Amino acid sequence: MMAHTAAQRIKVGIVGGTGYTGVELLRMLAQHPGVELTAITSRKEDGMPVAEMFPNLRGHVKIAFSSPDKAKLEQCDVVFFATPHGVAMAQAKALLAAGVRIIDLAADFRLQDTAVFEHWYKMPHACPEVLAESVYGLVELNRQSIAAARVIGNPGCYPTTVLLGLAPLLGGQPLIDTTDIIVDAKSGVSGAGRKAEVSTLLSEASDNFKAYGVAGHRHQPEIKAQLDLLASTSVGLTFVPHLVPMIRGMFSTIYVRILPEAREVDFQALFEARYANEAFVDVMPAGSLPETRSVRASNTLRIALQRPGQGDRLIILVVQDNLVKGASGQAIQNMNLMFGLPETTGLNQIAILP
Amino acid sequence: MMAHTAAQRIKVGIVGGTGYTGVELLRMLAQHPGVELTAITSRKEDGMPVAEMFPNLRGHVKIAFSSPDKAKLEQCDVVFFATPHGVAMAQAKALLAAGVRIIDLAADFRLQDTAVFEHWYKMPHACPEVLAESVYGLVELNRQSIAAARVIGNPGCYPTTVLLGLAPLLGGQPLIDTTDIIVDAKSGVSGAGRKAEVSTLLSEASDNFKAYGVAGHRHQPEIKAQLDLLASTSVGLTFVPHLVPMIRGMFSTIYVRILPEAREVDFQALFEARYANEAFVDVMPAGSLPETRSVRASNTLRIALQRPGQGDRLIILVVQDNLVKGASGQAIQNMNLMFGLPETTGLNQIAILP
Amino acid sequence: MMAHTAAQRIKVGIVGGTGYTGVELLRMLAQHPGVELTAITSRKEDGMPVAEMFPNLRGHVKIAFSSPDKAKLEQCDVVFFATPHGVAMAQAKALLAAGVRIIDLAADFRLQDTAVFEHWYKMPHACPEVLAESVYGLVELNRQSIAAARVIGNPGCYPTTVLLGLAPLLGGQPLIDTTDIIVDAKSGVSGAGRKAEVSTLLSEASDNFKAYGVAGHRHQPEIKAQLDLLASTSVGLTFVPHLVPMIRGMFSTIYVRILPEAREVDFQALFEARYANEAFVDVMPAGSLPETRSVRASNTLRIALQRPGQGDRLIILVVQDNLVKGASGQAIQNMNLMFGLPETTGLNQIAILP
Amino acid sequence: MMAHTAAQRIKVGIVGGTGYTGVELLRMLAQHPGVELTAITSRKEDGMPVAEMFPNLRGHVKIAFSSPDKAKLEQCDVVFFATPHGVAMAQAKALLAAGVRIIDLAADFRLQDTAVFEHWYKMPHACPEVLAESVYGLVELNRQSIAAARVIGNPGCYPTTVLLGLAPLLGGQPLIDTTDIIVDAKSGVSGAGRKAEVSTLLSEASDNFKAYGVAGHRHQPEIKAQLDLLASTSVGLTFVPHLVPMIRGMFSTIYVRILPEAREVDFQALFEARYANEAFVDVMPAGSLPETRSVRASNTLRIALQRPGQGDRLIILVVQDNLVKGASGQAIQNMNLMFGLPETTGLNQIAILP
Repeated sequence: MMAHTAAQRIKVGIVGGTGYTGVELLRMLAQHPGVELTAITSRKEDGMPVAEMFPNLRGHVKIAFSSPDKAKLEQCDVVFFATPHGVAMAQAKALLAAGVRIIDLAADFRLQDTAVFEHWYKMPHACPEVLAESVYGLVELNRQSIAAARVIGNPGCYPTTVLLGLAPLLGGQPLIDTTDIIVDAKSGVSGAGRKAEVSTLLSEASDNFKAYGVAGHRHQPEIKAQLDLLASTSVGLTFVPHLVPMIRGMFSTIYVRILPEAREVDFQALFEARYANEAFVDVMPAGSLPETRSVRASNTLRIALQRPGQGDRLIILVVQDNLVKGASGQAIQNMNLMFGLPETTGLNQIAILP
Repeated sequence: MMAHTAAQRIKVGIVGGTGYTGVELLRMLAQHPGVELTAITSRKEDGMPVAEMFPNLRGHVKIAFSSPDKAKLEQCDVVFFATPHGVAMAQAKALLAAGVRIIDLAADFRLQDTAVFEHWYKMPHACPEVLAESVYGLVELNRQSIAAARVIGNPGCYPTTVLLGLAPLLGGQPLIDTTDIIVDAKSGVSGAGRKAEVSTLLSEASDNFKAYGVAGHRHQPEIKAQLDLLASTSVGLTFVPHLVPMIRGMFSTIYVRILPEAREVDFQALFEARYANEAFVDVMPAGSLPETRSVRASNTLRIALQRPGQGDRLIILVVQDNLVKGASGQAIQNMNLMFGLPETTGLNQIAILP
Repeated sequence: MMAHTAAQRIKVGIVGGTGYTGVELLRMLAQHPGVELTAITSRKEDGMPVAEMFPNLRGHVKIAFSSPDKAKLEQCDVVFFATPHGVAMAQAKALLAAGVRIIDLAADFRLQDTAVFEHWYKMPHACPEVLAESVYGLVELNRQSIAAARVIGNPGCYPTTVLLGLAPLLGGQPLIDTTDIIVDAKSGVSGAGRKAEVSTLLSEASDNFKAYGVAGHRHQPEIKAQLDLLASTSVGLTFVPHLVPMIRGMFSTIYVRILPEAREVDFQALFEARYANEAFVDVMPAGSLPETRSVRASNTLRIALQRPGQGDRLIILVVQDNLVKGASGQAIQNMNLMFGLPETTGLNQIAILP
Repeated sequence: MMAHTAAQRIKVGIVGGTGYTGVELLRMLAQHPGVELTAITSRKEDGMPVAEMFPNLRGHVKIAFSSPDKAKLEQCDVVFFATPHGVAMAQAKALLAAGVRIIDLAADFRLQDTAVFEHWYKMPHACPEVLAESVYGLVELNRQSIAAARVIGNPGCYPTTVLLGLAPLLGGQPLIDTTDIIVDAKSGVSGAGRKAEVSTLLSEASDNFKAYGVAGHRHQPEIKAQLDLLASTSVGLTFVPHLVPMIRGMFSTIYVRILPEAREVDFQALFEARYANEAFVDVMPAGSLPETRSVRASNTLRIALQRPGQGDRLIILVVQDNLVKGASGQAIQNMNLMFGLPETTGLNQIAILP
């Protein structure tokens, strides 16, 4: 596809957009030099300027929410779905027919196995044939197919950390025991979205720590499906997510066992080589301890390796901002690729610390 | 009334109780030596053990929520209403007729002027005659009438801090300009209750500070009505509440102007004398700076006075736990008085710090 | 030993006490019916009322810090050391000679292997013979020897969660693979103490999540030593602690592999039976998800079991308040036992929620 | 002065830079298109890459701290002092002599009255003649003199909110009672800096609210001096700062009394007109309630007016990010002006929400 120039800005529509992935898309797209923000839909908020709902956008984003019927999304070059699961697949065919590309931040195009999708999301898949052509939008793994794709399933936040944390260990010579991977993951509360719920009230969730979804979290099948692909085998995965009393940030502590024949491998060098040319994956120096704040509001994901006592346990520590690399930033990274822009366009902001 | 003995425990019922004032009542009553917790009602949660909703109560509180029809509240000695506004006044007459005393933690019995009540709470008052006999349950101001009362309107959280912060200055010789009192108040988020609302989500309310209700807060008429009584005149009050990103705690910064004829008054001595015998009001040493955490989870309210440059501005700093002295602890303090128990019974817990 | 009566209150001294375990000891001992708080030492704060440093104690604790030479600790029945590592062992012999019992909240009497102690704490052990008679103060494991002990090494906070979380699985018929135990642990910031350090400033540690001490944490050898005892073998332990942006609370997620011969064991029943008579260990119903706030400011430790997909991974979730069951509450529990008081005396407070 | 072009980047040095204003300068300058970051000094951290201290800068800022003797600051075009008070005035003369401009983020050039400076900062002023030519760097008030200045005293964080909140009311026809201005101000904890102190530990400052410095805060004389200038009279100011348990953000609630002759003034229109052309001052619609998070990590300051009951009390609510518009962002805004760049260069980032 030809690169868009400043004179040919990408016309972008957003469906949904009243949640946190929505406001993050707006924040980043408003500062993106290659984009023209064309429409944002919300049936309920029709006519309300987005800056009224999200006061940080005052003076930066002028458009208002409009009801879907008025939004003329078919005139866009690309539409982001920042919606609940099930919305994108209902509108995908019509938009594709109009020549619009689709990036879905929900789960509609993340799981190729529709039976698994239906089991976890409790709805039939509305367009298996679109699903079949869709691409899993983890740029560092699928760069070429993303560039050519019409439909992107933007990865879940937890899967992004786990897949990038494990990818260098899978697919080549056997390095780790793939039957027994443990992921102890922790997320800030914004991952639960901007829904009115008792469990995520400040008075409930702050000054508190808990596990949740231990019996089964929707990101588990997504992680496993992608790990199976990477490993060319069925991996064994234990996944326990926890809720951290903070707004943003995600931390995955991944425990794998090094195979006897791989004890001499220099894992630090392996990871550094794998991600040497990746703008948004930072392999930290050996022995580092990443912090979520080091990536707050940025598209960077950081990885550090620990091998206590030089034994056979390798521990991979991964941090990202769940709303940026784990959602909206990654979606824009996909868009950049799909429209021939440099991958980092509009995504170079430095993390906010403190 | 005769004092209850351990052998004659007060039979207590709670209407509502699925909110924060409810769980605080349960926590403190479960540890109260003179109380038998008899019933707690919730139509929606009928049959659910309270310890399932509030896991801190596991092993301490055995009773379950029951629907109002099963709860036999008329067999209680006293019923606390930890309900939305309007519930207590609908049930008051029947309970009183059955000989049950009532302590309402909502606003039904706080405002003697029913027109004011109806203006601010958007509902007619259902039982003006019960209202007429009810007593405003601020123990330090109304001890004697509370002891004899059948119905208590438990004060709002903000009013408790403001009234106790100003009472020593009102009602005697003129000390301050009562036409111009400014209250800049700050509350933790639990004051908004345990309702599912976007504005009090951790992701919205933490790492943030804002004013709210500046155009009109329901505690303003309550404060003014009581100040008018104390001052025997119509006071001028500016009241601006703010929301603090913390769970518990309330801080009121009160600005008054010292009258010229009162410039030589020793305000520190005045306050110390006024509260010398109060178990739950702590007048801190001159120049102190109170902190909300110093009263976290306790029934103590602390006051400190500041007079910058020994000028004519007196600043009164007041802290309390909004859920304890500002709500449930104060309600139990009222109960103790009404049933002839020592006022501090069950209320001696030391604040939690850090 | 004869039980103390109210008329014979235990005379208690505290060495140190300007930190968080100190203020917690003071808070709980001030409300303990069998204790007379006799002395608290701090060379630096000599003469300062403790309530000046810890404003929650105003009106509840009258004593002041005194320098060690004035404190007459040898007249106490028991002395708590809430000090840095190394202080208790320097004073232990003299106090024992004076008939005083010792409960050390630091590490001086936690590790029987002095070489291990010296490796991790970078100091020689000053009194190996006192160490030899000391007892590891985890009541639920060592009740009888604690009751008879003169010197207690109060357990570290992390070890308390891990040992109580694993004890039912060890020591009987083989149930789990003891060569590969993974503990992913999370602590509130108060665990780092009340020391002026950049890394635990609010501006550094809030809205952030990180691992620390992955290369080696002092609680690792303590956990391993006790697990080895319980398992009667050398266990394999991976231990990764993390820092949670909250004040209090500790959460350990423990991953073990069920042995093939133990697949049919009812682990829930096993845990419930093991702790059926323990006042401070709550085995939650199957499938529960414990939260740290459910034990905030209480001496309760809660355990829940998860077995995803009924496979061979058993996940044990453990919560406690790091300052109470993880430190000062446990120390008082030890004292109660040592002086013949009911174990729960002064420790029955209900957790604070919200 | 001639405008710098991209080919002539401004050579910038930073003295200090290990604190929060330092890392914010680095974050914003690293993304500033007209700047070349030349040197950053720290005697203690000589040789340490700044990205090691501030991990958010990894991959964005390559330079290391250097000791002052190596830093060749005299070759810079401008030097920022992000240092404790007293450092800039010691080095000012030599740098000016070398043709270097100075922007001091500490207080050395904020107070023209050296007696006042010495009273509040407990040190004599080292260079009164440089002070005499320095300009108070509040761009919206002093744009022209800043553009021509060689030395800037960058305003304190509290003064920025108060001065911009009151400026439209002062200096023209009498509108408010200048003898009685009350500022109830609230700041996030980062305002206390990155110093190891007990009072700003997470365990002390979170879940807590308190006033501080009521008896006298260093920003009081700074505010008063500037208000006196604006009002051409000596104003009466009551200033009470409070500490909010959040990292960033500042909120000032300003209470003024409208003069009888100004009761009909349209204050909303007045403020909107005053700031119509200001890029970084947002006068919100009438009745708005600003939130600190709406400006988090951005250089915007927002103002809203409230006039309860249309009476004679005008309440001005002002929010900013204390580290950006209240410190480092404002400093860069000054630099842009001094070097002929568009004032908003490098300062257009949208606030981070949630």
